[in-house]
Amino acid sequence: MNFYPIIVVGGGVSGASAAMYAARFNLKTLVFAEQPGGLITTTHLVENYPGIKSISGPKMGMVFLEHAKETGAEFKYETIVEAQKVKIPQGHEYAGVDGFRVATKSDEYFCLTLVLATGTEHKHLNIPGEQEYKNKGVSYCALCDAGFFKEKTVAIVGGGDTSAIDANILSQQCSKVYVLVRKDYMKAEPINLKRIEDDPKVEILYNTEVSTIEGNAETMTHVMLKDGSKMDLDGLFVAIGWNTKSELAKQLGAELNARNEVVINREAETSVPGLYAAGDVTDAHFKQAIIGAAEGVYASVQAFNYIQNLKTAA
Amino acid sequence: MNFYPIIVVGGGVSGASAAMYAARFNLKTLVFAEQPGGLITTTHLVENYPGIKSISGPKMGMVFLEHAKETGAEFKYETIVEAQKVKIPQGHEYAGVDGFRVATKSDEYFCLTLVLATGTEHKHLNIPGEQEYKNKGVSYCALCDAGFFKEKTVAIVGGGDTSAIDANILSQQCSKVYVLVRKDYMKAEPINLKRIEDDPKVEILYNTEVSTIEGNAETMTHVMLKDGSKMDLDGLFVAIGWNTKSELAKQLGAELNARNEVVINREAETSVPGLYAAGDVTDAHFKQAIIGAAEGVYASVQAFNYIQNLKTAA
Repeated sequence: MNFYPIIVVGGGVSGASAAMYAARFNLKTLVFAEQPGGLITTTHLVENYPGIKSISGPKMGMVFLEHAKETGAEFKYETIVEAQKVKIPQGHEYAGVDGFRVATKSDEYFCLTLVLATGTEHKHLNIPGEQEYKNKGVSYCALCDAGFFKEKTVAIVGGGDTSAIDANILSQQCSKVYVLVRKDYMKAEPINLKRIEDDPKVEILYNTEVSTIEGNAETMTHVMLKDGSKMDLDGLFVAIGWNTKSELAKQLGAELNARNEVVINREAETSVPGLYAAGDVTDAHFKQAIIGAAEGVYASVQAFNYIQNLKTAA
Repeated sequence: MNFYPIIVVGGGVSGASAAMYAARFNLKTLVFAEQPGGLITTTHLVENYPGIKSISGPKMGMVFLEHAKETGAEFKYETIVEAQKVKIPQGHEYAGVDGFRVATKSDEYFCLTLVLATGTEHKHLNIPGEQEYKNKGVSYCALCDAGFFKEKTVAIVGGGDTSAIDANILSQQCSKVYVLVRKDYMKAEPINLKRIEDDPKVEILYNTEVSTIEGNAETMTHVMLKDGSKMDLDGLFVAIGWNTKSELAKQLGAELNARNEVVINREAETSVPGLYAAGDVTDAHFKQAIIGAAEGVYASVQAFNYIQNLKTAA
């Protein structure tokens, strides 16, 4: 039987922080890192993590993973597809005790405490051609991919602050940047909006929606808009927000808020005893690496206390 | 008039993190750093701050200060001796608005928002050898330093709950843990006491007091007890409590708990609008650098929002 006192789902900054602390408590710790390093690896440069003045996103993700590994946490680069509350099966010192079962497509694992640091993923347009041309012109990260579109014509979809910021980033490299906004206004910070309004390379098109993405076998070549017109494009960036990856928390019956975020208290406890959450998947108002790291640490401290209490009660 | 939208009192990890974020928000930020780098500078080696695998305490303190300075925060190495809630005086754009006045022995400063990151100080045994062997076997933080005593014999001094909790933490790594208690009982939570009573590696010695700490040039080797006996030890942990430096919070009428810690919510807000607290001075159950840094960040985010709301209301 695959048994660990603590399992962490998520290999980003928050999961790695939880794992590092759990390993420091000498808990046998397993991390499922479907996306090693997590979402921060899609960021160009991080300069606001207290104590690290400047580091690239990919490097930062790796440092956190190494920190956890070198402290003793074990890593598997697999996806957890389901999670349940169970009694620990017979044949183990904790047999009959409340715990959790998590499963990949091929194997199952049991644990006493579970930390969900599953993060968020970029929202998709869910229109024809989007999957087909993903990484063939369609991108979800301007910072990561702007360099592939030097002197090209691109569009960015989205009416929020991220879209405005990303349009500015793209304008540094591309010859033309269309901002496609569904409504008749942008909900961006004034300073970011003014920047792109004043940029001759950037053109904001309001009341504009993409209906399909089309192209040839290698790459997208154009999009069709809802008004029936065709727009030739080398690339399409999607910046319409994030989905919280809280499916496992939902399967386990943890309380979620209206945005599908896992509700935690100040010590990273969910509504389910023994279940903790950390990082972008939680209801923290402010989704930053430092907040997720601290939640990860709290999660492991509380998991450690929870396990110690099980020992005393037994 | 010395006016800043935000003033931070405390130049440790938590204060510096608050200041760095405040400066990133383009707030003119002043930090009073009576003890530059804060309590972490008294730690030999820090290996549990997520993202920084290993760093000396003094170096870590300096890195945080530099991070805040290079982002634009201004520092003064003076002590704030008093704080009051006031209306911002005439002659300023915020004249008449609720704010704070803080004063050194020689000067006064006004601000709209105030972050208290004044920290704690460990209580000392005040016995011969304690200063000499600090970080040479003598430690004030089991959680930080347990890893340096793997398979070693250590003692922890203290009859309170922290001592019991720390003895359990030490027992995960050390081969033997003595708990030295001055009285003939421990004032620990029953669950924590039972845990160490049941632990074969832990031995509680009541009516036992350390009189001196002795050793060679590199490290402590033993302690002498008040009854004249000698105890060989690789490490001595001191867990007789700490003093929370919450005098300014008290002057400002912020809610304190029974341990004189400033009560904050998950977003570092105190009971006084515009007043935030971060780090060891707060009622966080778990006093670690990463927690304080995150609280500092939350404090500045909330201070920024508070100031933006003042502007909107004006």
